[in-house]
Amino acid sequence: MSNTEHTSLGPGAEFDRIRQALARLGPNAVGAGDDCAFVEVGAERLALSCDLTIEGTHFRAGWLAPVELGWRATAAALSDLAAVAARPLGVLTSVAVPAEWPEEHFADLMEGVGEAARSAGAVVWGGDLVRADRVVVDVLVAGRLDGEPVRRSGAQAGDELWVTGVLGGPFRAVAAWNAGTEPDETARARFTHPVPRVREALWLKDRGARAMIDVSDGLVADAGHLAAASGVGVVIDPDRVPLHPAVEVVDEALASGEEYELLLALPPGAGAAAAQAFRAAFDLPLTQVGVVEQGAGVQLRRRSGPVNLPPLFGHFR
Amino acid sequence: MSNTEHTSLGPGAEFDRIRQALARLGPNAVGAGDDCAFVEVGAERLALSCDLTIEGTHFRAGWLAPVELGWRATAAALSDLAAVAARPLGVLTSVAVPAEWPEEHFADLMEGVGEAARSAGAVVWGGDLVRADRVVVDVLVAGRLDGEPVRRSGAQAGDELWVTGVLGGPFRAVAAWNAGTEPDETARARFTHPVPRVREALWLKDRGARAMIDVSDGLVADAGHLAAASGVGVVIDPDRVPLHPAVEVVDEALASGEEYELLLALPPGAGAAAAQAFRAAFDLPLTQVGVVEQGAGVQLRRRSGPVNLPPLFGHFR
Repeated sequence: MSNTEHTSLGPGAEFDRIRQALARLGPNAVGAGDDCAFVEVGAERLALSCDLTIEGTHFRAGWLAPVELGWRATAAALSDLAAVAARPLGVLTSVAVPAEWPEEHFADLMEGVGEAARSAGAVVWGGDLVRADRVVVDVLVAGRLDGEPVRRSGAQAGDELWVTGVLGGPFRAVAAWNAGTEPDETARARFTHPVPRVREALWLKDRGARAMIDVSDGLVADAGHLAAASGVGVVIDPDRVPLHPAVEVVDEALASGEEYELLLALPPGAGAAAAQAFRAAFDLPLTQVGVVEQGAGVQLRRRSGPVNLPPLFGHFR
Repeated sequence: MSNTEHTSLGPGAEFDRIRQALARLGPNAVGAGDDCAFVEVGAERLALSCDLTIEGTHFRAGWLAPVELGWRATAAALSDLAAVAARPLGVLTSVAVPAEWPEEHFADLMEGVGEAARSAGAVVWGGDLVRADRVVVDVLVAGRLDGEPVRRSGAQAGDELWVTGVLGGPFRAVAAWNAGTEPDETARARFTHPVPRVREALWLKDRGARAMIDVSDGLVADAGHLAAASGVGVVIDPDRVPLHPAVEVVDEALASGEEYELLLALPPGAGAAAAQAFRAAFDLPLTQVGVVEQGAGVQLRRRSGPVNLPPLFGHFR
């Protein structure tokens, strides 16, 4: 989800728009500037987020089977809960489908929603269904926080920057589709069946993760959000970024969005032991990609020296 | 919101689709078949709902200023909380806007969201913003329940069927736009600035409302949902339906959706005194439109005898 704290967003026109809008709401808008909103309900604290998926913006007809669309939209929303280390409780879905969709497509879509929810320990609470001339899926997720969430704003100069999994698969899948070819199967699966890192996030919180964000806009863009929220600079070494096997050049992995991996800051020295145990626990790499420094923004720096930021990619660009 | 209980939905292809989809989710789908999902959080009980508004389905370009769109989408979702007599806490919004929208349009839209939320005692928790080629607004609302919600399923044979406000304004507004003319100003306001009956609902619950639903699909259609959920039949007298002044024939008021008035069942004899006090408290009519009987479905019956159901109207039909 986007944010409601004016100081904690990275650069970009979309974020300027949200800032402008929420500034006008004044005290009627609350929120913590994180992947989720945090809401006290009695003695409990909930994390809430919503994630909107629209045909033509996030995918094109033919890229995703309905069951994959349901999974993917739900996984994207659940990933926001992972980013703050909340335990998923349930989901609500608002769905628009074209009138010409076969009956079973909607049921397939909801089956994907249900599978993704179940995989994260959540249930489907209900939703809204309307007709439109393109497919829209909005997924609202609610999770329970045990104690404090992990925020974007906790990174400190000297911390190490780590990322789960490997990056670049979704970029390669979209690039193949846009070129009129079929993607590599494993790259395609990273786009169609992303895995929200819910259990991984709880584990990483226990190991001292000080700041966290999910990689939805791309590694460099999301590192920028984390840096802005924490009031620090972030340095990423492109040579250390863990690449999906289908990646051809590292820029693809730096820009690839909708990865739903976790980017996090760990205290100095905490990561090396954590990485081994993490791999053993989850069969997934945990890789240091950079460091947190005083300053602002994101720099790319190889051991041989600074490099220019690649152009950032939005949806389909 | 639509429903997750298979037995409590009225007729119609949309509802068949939801039934089919949720049947396949099995025990992974929960819900009470009401306007909201009910979720226990610690000692609290929340009502949650989401409501999706899409350009081309719910409105066309030029019908609504952005601030009106934000209000309307939020009011529609808040009305689901009213329907179960929940106290609104907050809203999340997922918004898609075209790239060519002026910057201030999105801020205006969010101002409308904020105004509607504030009018109902709720705050804006945050949201998601993406670009698309048409406007999409999904609003998630959460409210707190004091004790039991008022459900759709509580109507009993012998109850009286009452409705708040006057009906038909939104129908007339859409009809005027579809005819290429400007609507009557008060009819237009019923479409652009619907008022969720949040306080009215709490009041009606205290006066013994046994079953309630908001009029979003149209009086006859929503009476059908209530009848199906309660396992009863409903009889509506068209001559008793309170008409918006712009209404030309009563069928318009029977079919007019997106009214966001409340349709409710009161125990026999409870309504007459309630109606006077209701009008004094809210400056709004509360009108008996029919009765609840044994049986199933909705019948229209004048004192002079039965009449045929008018064709039901979906969006723009």
